[in-house]
Amino acid sequence: MLIDCGEGTQSQLRRYKIRFQDIQHIFISHLHGDHFFGLPGLIATFRLLGRHHALHVYGPLGMKEAVMGMLLAGQTHIDYPLFFHEVDTQTPQVLFEDQGLVVRSFPLNHRVPTQGFLFEQKPGLRHIRRSMIPDQWPKYAYDLLKSGRDYIDDQGQSFSSSEYTKPGLPAKKYAFCSDTQFDTKIVPYIQGANLLYHESTFLNTEKALAKKTGHSTAEQAGMIAAMASVENLMLGHFSTRYPSTEPFIAEANLHFNQVVCAHEGLELSC
Amino acid sequence: MLIDCGEGTQSQLRRYKIRFQDIQHIFISHLHGDHFFGLPGLIATFRLLGRHHALHVYGPLGMKEAVMGMLLAGQTHIDYPLFFHEVDTQTPQVLFEDQGLVVRSFPLNHRVPTQGFLFEQKPGLRHIRRSMIPDQWPKYAYDLLKSGRDYIDDQGQSFSSSEYTKPGLPAKKYAFCSDTQFDTKIVPYIQGANLLYHESTFLNTEKALAKKTGHSTAEQAGMIAAMASVENLMLGHFSTRYPSTEPFIAEANLHFNQVVCAHEGLELSC
Repeated sequence: MLIDCGEGTQSQLRRYKIRFQDIQHIFISHLHGDHFFGLPGLIATFRLLGRHHALHVYGPLGMKEAVMGMLLAGQTHIDYPLFFHEVDTQTPQVLFEDQGLVVRSFPLNHRVPTQGFLFEQKPGLRHIRRSMIPDQWPKYAYDLLKSGRDYIDDQGQSFSSSEYTKPGLPAKKYAFCSDTQFDTKIVPYIQGANLLYHESTFLNTEKALAKKTGHSTAEQAGMIAAMASVENLMLGHFSTRYPSTEPFIAEANLHFNQVVCAHEGLELSC
Repeated sequence: MLIDCGEGTQSQLRRYKIRFQDIQHIFISHLHGDHFFGLPGLIATFRLLGRHHALHVYGPLGMKEAVMGMLLAGQTHIDYPLFFHEVDTQTPQVLFEDQGLVVRSFPLNHRVPTQGFLFEQKPGLRHIRRSMIPDQWPKYAYDLLKSGRDYIDDQGQSFSSSEYTKPGLPAKKYAFCSDTQFDTKIVPYIQGANLLYHESTFLNTEKALAKKTGHSTAEQAGMIAAMASVENLMLGHFSTRYPSTEPFIAEANLHFNQVVCAHEGLELSC
């Protein structure tokens, strides 16, 4: 899954040795260039690489026409299954769901229609307490117990999942908020996320400019993180006017302690 | 002047410290992604940098609609003078002319409408033979002689330009041919160029594939260079299937000796 696709995303994927063909879903937050101008090229490159499997792209209304306009101008016809899912960014909705994950969208507050994304794992299967289990159970007994249901054996004896298993891995939540001005209406959508990415284009010295351009300051991002009781906050989208990201940490720390600044190639595990 | 604008052109301009605002004219050979997907981003960045002076973009029909479609999808309105000059690539024509330079287009032979470009300097001003000139001439006398006209002084005496000056710097010609299959119809347009850039996507082992995809082999590029009696040949647009560019030189050398292979950041003076 790829979130946003600015110009040069292809180069960055190569630089960090991410396999192009592993990308199956692309989520576009809004149609400003730094968030979607890399789409036509990436879609065309998938074709050159001989892609056969489907690609799903989720984004605001107008995305498909713009991207296909670039591709068709050069008679580049895509021969793998390509699906554009255009959504009303102001209506929170489920964009994707499978056995392990739900991806939800929610409205952000920027100059153009913009959405945030919540990547929400489903709770993992429960773990069998192996020491309590007799040898002779069939496999489906384990599956039942792991899924939280009870097992009744041939003799009619019942074994409860809560007794014979312990909870599985905790489900993680990643919330992505880019670009947006300070807006507490976001908070309910991202409540309790393990990791919140929140843009902080500016510092408080440019607070008025932040509001005018539909962006946030680092302090505002810290406030949102605190209000939403997230575990970790990642800041990003820094204006090039600032030579260092250290003051961003300090400002966010006014309200929230667990803060990192995004940089190229950063890998996080929360 | 910038020729073609693939995705990531912005990054490369930064990498090689080329001033964005120096670019006034962009020439697009055809509408395949690797030749124009960088346009929307570059045009948007010029705006962010506060550009006021005009930008002229020359390219095939359909270019403007595709590029503006990407910009307008995100409500990015360009506030500096931006001119798209869409041309029929099959009709050779003058795209640009000023006191020192003419830029001409001519048809190439590719899968989609594609044009080559000839950048042709006008002959430089003649050089005054200083040792022959008396001190007392006014400035306009020098300008007359340098431009090739004769000067007549207050006493009615005539001084001919051919006697009092020698020829200026020779006018240079740069011919750009990308992408194209082998086509001798190109030759008259590029005759005598000081430098010819000619694509050589393939080696002769892939000659059939070259023809099928509308590309050339290195040997074919060498043949065109020889037929057009150019001074130097630069090869480029190499397929990533080849680990080294050395065999391209060797193949082109079958017909032509002065050959270099383009690589990122190459600067040439011919």
